[in-house]
Amino acid sequence: MKKLDEIIENIKFGVDYYPEHWPEERWETDAELMEKMGIQMVRMAEFSWHKMEPRCGEFHFEWLDRAVNLLGRHGIYTMLGTPTAAPPAWIVEKNPEILPVDSNGQRKSFGGRHHDCQSNKVYREHVKRIVAAMAEHFKNNPYIIGWQIDNELGNSHDDLCMCESCKNAFSRWLENKYHTIDELNHQWGTSFWSQEYDDFSQIPVPRKTPTVHNPSMLLDWKRFCSDLVIDFQNMQISIIRKISPNQKITHNLMGFYDKTNYFKMAETLDFAANDQYPTGYYFKAPGQPPYEVAACMDFIRCVKQKNFWMMEMQSGPTGGSVIGANPRPGQNLLWTAQSVAHGADEITYFRWRTCLFGAEQFWHGILPHNGVPGRRYSEIQETIQILTPVMDDIHGIVQKAQAGILFSYENEWAIRLQPQNPGLKYDEVVFKYYKEFYKHNITVDFVASGADLGKYRILVAPLLYLMTPELEKRLEKYVKDGGILILTMRTGVMNNNNVCMSENPLPGKLAAIVGAKVEEYDSLYEKNVILNMKDWKGIGEHWCDILSPASAVPIAIYGSEYYKGKAAIVKNKYKNGWVYYIGTDPEEKTMEYLMEKILTDAGMFREKTGNVEIVFRKGRKKEYLFVMNHAEEDCVAEVPGGWNAEERIQLKGYEVKILERNCGNDKSGRQS
Amino acid sequence: MKKLDEIIENIKFGVDYYPEHWPEERWETDAELMEKMGIQMVRMAEFSWHKMEPRCGEFHFEWLDRAVNLLGRHGIYTMLGTPTAAPPAWIVEKNPEILPVDSNGQRKSFGGRHHDCQSNKVYREHVKRIVAAMAEHFKNNPYIIGWQIDNELGNSHDDLCMCESCKNAFSRWLENKYHTIDELNHQWGTSFWSQEYDDFSQIPVPRKTPTVHNPSMLLDWKRFCSDLVIDFQNMQISIIRKISPNQKITHNLMGFYDKTNYFKMAETLDFAANDQYPTGYYFKAPGQPPYEVAACMDFIRCVKQKNFWMMEMQSGPTGGSVIGANPRPGQNLLWTAQSVAHGADEITYFRWRTCLFGAEQFWHGILPHNGVPGRRYSEIQETIQILTPVMDDIHGIVQKAQAGILFSYENEWAIRLQPQNPGLKYDEVVFKYYKEFYKHNITVDFVASGADLGKYRILVAPLLYLMTPELEKRLEKYVKDGGILILTMRTGVMNNNNVCMSENPLPGKLAAIVGAKVEEYDSLYEKNVILNMKDWKGIGEHWCDILSPASAVPIAIYGSEYYKGKAAIVKNKYKNGWVYYIGTDPEEKTMEYLMEKILTDAGMFREKTGNVEIVFRKGRKKEYLFVMNHAEEDCVAEVPGGWNAEERIQLKGYEVKILERNCGNDKSGRQS
Amino acid sequence: MKKLDEIIENIKFGVDYYPEHWPEERWETDAELMEKMGIQMVRMAEFSWHKMEPRCGEFHFEWLDRAVNLLGRHGIYTMLGTPTAAPPAWIVEKNPEILPVDSNGQRKSFGGRHHDCQSNKVYREHVKRIVAAMAEHFKNNPYIIGWQIDNELGNSHDDLCMCESCKNAFSRWLENKYHTIDELNHQWGTSFWSQEYDDFSQIPVPRKTPTVHNPSMLLDWKRFCSDLVIDFQNMQISIIRKISPNQKITHNLMGFYDKTNYFKMAETLDFAANDQYPTGYYFKAPGQPPYEVAACMDFIRCVKQKNFWMMEMQSGPTGGSVIGANPRPGQNLLWTAQSVAHGADEITYFRWRTCLFGAEQFWHGILPHNGVPGRRYSEIQETIQILTPVMDDIHGIVQKAQAGILFSYENEWAIRLQPQNPGLKYDEVVFKYYKEFYKHNITVDFVASGADLGKYRILVAPLLYLMTPELEKRLEKYVKDGGILILTMRTGVMNNNNVCMSENPLPGKLAAIVGAKVEEYDSLYEKNVILNMKDWKGIGEHWCDILSPASAVPIAIYGSEYYKGKAAIVKNKYKNGWVYYIGTDPEEKTMEYLMEKILTDAGMFREKTGNVEIVFRKGRKKEYLFVMNHAEEDCVAEVPGGWNAEERIQLKGYEVKILERNCGNDKSGRQS
Repeated sequence: MKKLDEIIENIKFGVDYYPEHWPEERWETDAELMEKMGIQMVRMAEFSWHKMEPRCGEFHFEWLDRAVNLLGRHGIYTMLGTPTAAPPAWIVEKNPEILPVDSNGQRKSFGGRHHDCQSNKVYREHVKRIVAAMAEHFKNNPYIIGWQIDNELGNSHDDLCMCESCKNAFSRWLENKYHTIDELNHQWGTSFWSQEYDDFSQIPVPRKTPTVHNPSMLLDWKRFCSDLVIDFQNMQISIIRKISPNQKITHNLMGFYDKTNYFKMAETLDFAANDQYPTGYYFKAPGQPPYEVAACMDFIRCVKQKNFWMMEMQSGPTGGSVIGANPRPGQNLLWTAQSVAHGADEITYFRWRTCLFGAEQFWHGILPHNGVPGRRYSEIQETIQILTPVMDDIHGIVQKAQAGILFSYENEWAIRLQPQNPGLKYDEVVFKYYKEFYKHNITVDFVASGADLGKYRILVAPLLYLMTPELEKRLEKYVKDGGILILTMRTGVMNNNNVCMSENPLPGKLAAIVGAKVEEYDSLYEKNVILNMKDWKGIGEHWCDILSPASAVPIAIYGSEYYKGKAAIVKNKYKNGWVYYIGTDPEEKTMEYLMEKILTDAGMFREKTGNVEIVFRKGRKKEYLFVMNHAEEDCVAEVPGGWNAEERIQLKGYEVKILERNCGNDKSGRQS
Repeated sequence: MKKLDEIIENIKFGVDYYPEHWPEERWETDAELMEKMGIQMVRMAEFSWHKMEPRCGEFHFEWLDRAVNLLGRHGIYTMLGTPTAAPPAWIVEKNPEILPVDSNGQRKSFGGRHHDCQSNKVYREHVKRIVAAMAEHFKNNPYIIGWQIDNELGNSHDDLCMCESCKNAFSRWLENKYHTIDELNHQWGTSFWSQEYDDFSQIPVPRKTPTVHNPSMLLDWKRFCSDLVIDFQNMQISIIRKISPNQKITHNLMGFYDKTNYFKMAETLDFAANDQYPTGYYFKAPGQPPYEVAACMDFIRCVKQKNFWMMEMQSGPTGGSVIGANPRPGQNLLWTAQSVAHGADEITYFRWRTCLFGAEQFWHGILPHNGVPGRRYSEIQETIQILTPVMDDIHGIVQKAQAGILFSYENEWAIRLQPQNPGLKYDEVVFKYYKEFYKHNITVDFVASGADLGKYRILVAPLLYLMTPELEKRLEKYVKDGGILILTMRTGVMNNNNVCMSENPLPGKLAAIVGAKVEEYDSLYEKNVILNMKDWKGIGEHWCDILSPASAVPIAIYGSEYYKGKAAIVKNKYKNGWVYYIGTDPEEKTMEYLMEKILTDAGMFREKTGNVEIVFRKGRKKEYLFVMNHAEEDCVAEVPGGWNAEERIQLKGYEVKILERNCGNDKSGRQS
Repeated sequence: MKKLDEIIENIKFGVDYYPEHWPEERWETDAELMEKMGIQMVRMAEFSWHKMEPRCGEFHFEWLDRAVNLLGRHGIYTMLGTPTAAPPAWIVEKNPEILPVDSNGQRKSFGGRHHDCQSNKVYREHVKRIVAAMAEHFKNNPYIIGWQIDNELGNSHDDLCMCESCKNAFSRWLENKYHTIDELNHQWGTSFWSQEYDDFSQIPVPRKTPTVHNPSMLLDWKRFCSDLVIDFQNMQISIIRKISPNQKITHNLMGFYDKTNYFKMAETLDFAANDQYPTGYYFKAPGQPPYEVAACMDFIRCVKQKNFWMMEMQSGPTGGSVIGANPRPGQNLLWTAQSVAHGADEITYFRWRTCLFGAEQFWHGILPHNGVPGRRYSEIQETIQILTPVMDDIHGIVQKAQAGILFSYENEWAIRLQPQNPGLKYDEVVFKYYKEFYKHNITVDFVASGADLGKYRILVAPLLYLMTPELEKRLEKYVKDGGILILTMRTGVMNNNNVCMSENPLPGKLAAIVGAKVEEYDSLYEKNVILNMKDWKGIGEHWCDILSPASAVPIAIYGSEYYKGKAAIVKNKYKNGWVYYIGTDPEEKTMEYLMEKILTDAGMFREKTGNVEIVFRKGRKKEYLFVMNHAEEDCVAEVPGGWNAEERIQLKGYEVKILERNCGNDKSGRQS
């Protein structure tokens, strides 16, 4: 029998499967259809608590054994989900206190999913019992390759939970962080509005107040919520690792969903997984722009700095109370190829067959309601055939990036709490920079603020609002050593506890590498501001830092408002590197102009390719160029030389072409 | 003394009167003014519980006796309302648990109306006591002609009530429907998200959850709420029938208001009544379009398939916190004539005099606040004179319709819960088809899905989303026997428990009569779709069924999207009848084109008459043609021959002309 | 040592200072910077309860003594705030019942400010203790000039408090007003919807109901809430007056903020104070229009009919979660000069230094976060130098106004509860009339309905919706004695208890002086109405009174709708005066035309001066003309003769020029 690692390395395609939703007579048909299609694994059981434990302590895994084994006989392995995203009615009946409470103080009802309080000790006992029982039961089943903990942790919990148990857990978390109440009062600045606490037990959760809560408290609440979710995951992981140390453990993350710090969450996982629905959550067509989907993949690759699995890849129209657009012919291949290009080693499609009942009865799977294979089945079958050899060759090899974007959950939370200007959103600013790299087909890493910065030729650190002395030092070193650093407005505004910096003008100590300081700032409402740049008249939005350059050279000067003539964007040589400080939020055309200049100066410029995304991947035997047309319309893509192809290749709407050459044949020296 | 039936048959005009709001000295003046105007009946007491029972069990009907008798002496009869829409403060003080609870779990306050839980047993005891006492007291009063139960039942209860009592009542209702919890689990598909119930008592009411509830549960909740309202009504009816079996019982329904299934609700009524405010609820001018008002009247006529009463007909500007447009000169006659044309045998105007206080102090009546007759009094007085002889002649004679629209509350609820596309609303689709018949002055019946279909030449069944084997059979028979059936997108999607059909492609077994099946579907967001039709380039909205015709003939072909060239609308000969399947939501001009074709094929085509509505009514002695200009502007209407009138008659803005001829003089053979 | 009155008379500039937010070492620097700038007073301690009483009954005023004395040594006096806007956590822990409850029945959380129930007796005991202790401790400190009670009372309490204590307080308030429950039932018209109360204890607070509450109850609730706030203030005032009778007491009002009747609230104050943030609450730029800011100042001057203090004058960008526009160079002087011109004798800037933490960390003060004086410091320092001599001369002298606008909180509340038309807002209609006077640089008083009307040449009484016999008499006398009265649509609709008038057509008894009555009315929705006036085709919005003139002369005739040809605006000579009745809501150009006619007829016409506001003030030695350009653009202002200036003077964007001349040199006879 093969070793688990070997098995896993070979798995490239799977489906999310819910045998409990279908008559057992059908299972065999499903397995045959899967096998025929090229499916090698299924995820199962992540919402089947009641089926596995219909009464407290009474376990029924027989049905799941039968499903696992039947699939196994068809060469299909199983990843099991712990079912803790949906505690059954009998638990809620017994312990109604596990139902979560929102910021209005309202206890939510049973009836959906994630109707749970993750800090609740009684609930955790229930969780421990089911997880341990599952792990024990399945530890020796040769078809079980591993575990997904819960499902999309953090999802559905946005305004939850603010119950007494969470209040107590928050108090303990704060005590652990600040040790004394005096220190907390000092760090939070509770002398404002007479909010001094005499004891940790007095501190509320952020339920609705007549006005607004202390921003330091709100940021700590965000941190606490993230830590709570991670702790809830890790509690499960440690149970499984103890019982079944060799099976792999992952979790299905959700791109840039921000309830939980995924860098921290992924630490205990064997590998990361991602859920992706490119048409978006059926709110608009044609769905998420392809650069955002690409960014999600890049992000998930970066949380563990290695390739990842897709645990839920859209296969059909999404839908709840309304139904999304039907994926166009070609999109299944396109989306799959894009995932692979950005680092997915495995693709699990959600879901095998469209469910007949429940809240997701219109969240379509590969098979339609009636179970008869149709267009989606064929397209995905073909997708598997096309991509399998490529995936075999590039499996496990991580893309290298010359460009990094420093991504910080804490900054995202802080900017969400206080956006500075109604038009500023952390993720939108991040995407704005990402998009420019994407247009030029430059691979990007998302970098945690504690990670190694030195490997990037260029590093964008957008909205670096919260600042620590350590980070200041690391950024200085990065530039000193030759890096190109891009900083933006609102850098260094706050210390790590969301308290304003008071010792220096903005951007604080970083002024030394920026070669300029912020004299004043202005928040823009009805008007934008003009930016005079070399042969370009640009537009800035939302925010204006009015810069006073020392050593820095202005590259954009305000052309309107009372600070007309003052510097808006500056560039500074610092030791072996360069720092750009972008004191406003450039609208897209201006950003495009600006980043072209910066990329040219950095020697990283490549021609833009319109709607066509081009990704280079190096395999063991060959090199690949994924050429992907994300538009509905046909187009002509210009590809670099050396690929045994015309320089201009035709692509139909939504078409993908994967060019190949043997390794070592690259004449352009391109690395990524 | 006249018999009650004879009295009632003679009543054509009434007012809603609240003597308790005015000094008793004024009553005589009011009665004289009513008598002079032609008023024959009043509705009273439906909000006077405290006046009649100021303390538990202490009844005071003397004031009402005096009012009834004084009016009676002026030839004015009384219909009494049971006062259960407004339990007094002393009941709420004694039993605060009767206050209703919303989906947030919030118990509402006393202070408006309908602050009651209709399942609450204690409240029902209070209701029984007052209803029995009233019935007993008034059973022999010769001026009392009958009863209205409560007031606009279901109104103000939209997000109510979700209290413990309702939770228990819902459990019992479910147990009664499904018998065993296993059957419920099976029918609802509770294996999705581990929602299996072990006992009926575990089932929640649909209070807010972190995500969303099971759609089968939500549809059953809608059914339960409707049944609860009906049960609350019928409990009162049975008390009155027992005590006073001869007096008539009705309820004031509200057109297409959908909290309660009016087909079911009307079963126990002697006749249906309707409340209508054509300027709408003061949200926009010029208010509800006239075709919607006409549809309401047709609908109320159809709930018992016989003529009805108007229990509240708008007489002045509506108003609450804001005030609606003042009815234009002529509109009182116009609205009254339209009601009569569509089947109202009696018109009660709301209200006699504008109230000085309370939440409806700006919901204007016939008399202004100061009680001096003005324009509205004169116009309605003239209305009565004009319409009385016509109404005498057509009284009790029900219009015949050649066209039917199948109307289903359950489909409306299901589509409201899951609209499929954000632009789809059940009632709007129903109105869309109704409007085309209206434009051609073709009388329409709204048909319950269990009613006799055979009498209609053409039957539209829009959004027949929930399907049963029985209905499939009845539709097949209708077509087989020569009927023309129009089906639409989303037909046959669900079984009756809101679970997706799984055995066949859509539209399920009906594919046999449609002569086509649905290959795929697509939900439209930012774009519409082009429809290529014979000499017409149409537009489809919201939804596209991609049809694969077998025997059916395409009459519209998609002209855009990836299904360009596929069939969108088909027509199929099935035995002696025809079936049209309209796989998209045609925008108005396209719908107009389509329905003209269909009506022409059906031999039902009549010229459209613009803003002029023309209704034919046959009386005992004469035939009538109501010619109604609903526009502000003057116009010329073309009328058919044989009416002793020019072919083209002039109508001022909002003018009505009623043409007459003796029965048997029709040379055109027109029936409806 | 100087007497308090003398000290206070000399104080012209102050800052809001929070020494507790900064290290004590910094205080000396702050005091020096203040002194250098020209600051003479600070307001302190209004949010420092916990600092002063960290445990129940344990008082710590030492830190505040040190701050007061240190500042005093720099010639800076102190006004203390009572800290009751922010009860500390230990009080809430001990008495959670003081947390306020909203209309959903939700008890709010600790964590912002104003998390208090002002009717709660336990809370009042806490308040009494701290206020008495402060007053006792500081009564003899020579640097303490007086007290501000709480902070912006009524702010943050909009949907609060509806707890049991408030319910009981409301009951007692009602019992005090109506004496018997029968009288209340009679006055409120509770016979509508069976809402009769048997006892005051049954009356709810206006928590959410299934429909809507009785409008008479809602108006009394508004009155009660206002009275409760005033009572809460006066309780504190009486404690301080008893202990320290000579120190002055004020409160920082907020312009037209309408939770509390400021006319009534100001009665017990020594003088009124105002908080003003002309950029608005960071929602839009360029913020509040200057005429609205002017109106706020005029209003606060009128609440006590004498000059006032600015207790919080914006000095920098406002900000919470987002940050407002940065005040443009010149605006600090401009805003300060405008305040002085309209009656501020003193200006306190909010706040000294921008706070580093808490909810207002972006509500910028004079000094930036880093404490280094910058542009704002310089501009305000210059402002002080420029304005001090002018303020010395005009100190205490109240502007005289020839024009009055009758302002009524009760009408504002009533119209807010029932706006009659979605487009009608009381304050907007008030501002509409104010703006016309402002355009012509005519000083306006806001007049309480009980005040002396006789001193105004012209009096506008907009939306005089609630009417009393007393007011009818006073208005009649005003006109009889020669006044020019402007009345509008919806005059005299209600009695004082929000019950419709029933005896006469509108406008009730005032028809005698109007010389016309309202025949009908119409509420406008999608369309406006044309107004035919002498050489002007105007437009009316929202509402149309259709007037039937007796002695009155129409000056506008409806030119559209069914009342085309009927009078819309009339003018009537009554004894020695004139009455205008404006039966619609004229759009701005029409209003401008109309008011120019009226002002010309009244002999009050002056040329408009565009964006330039010109205010005349008479001092002891000189007369002043404040010429203020509120626009960003430069402009030329035309000034009247006699000012030793060109007739046309140049003003830069946001520039102020203050022209001077000796008293008695006025050749134009201008008084105001």
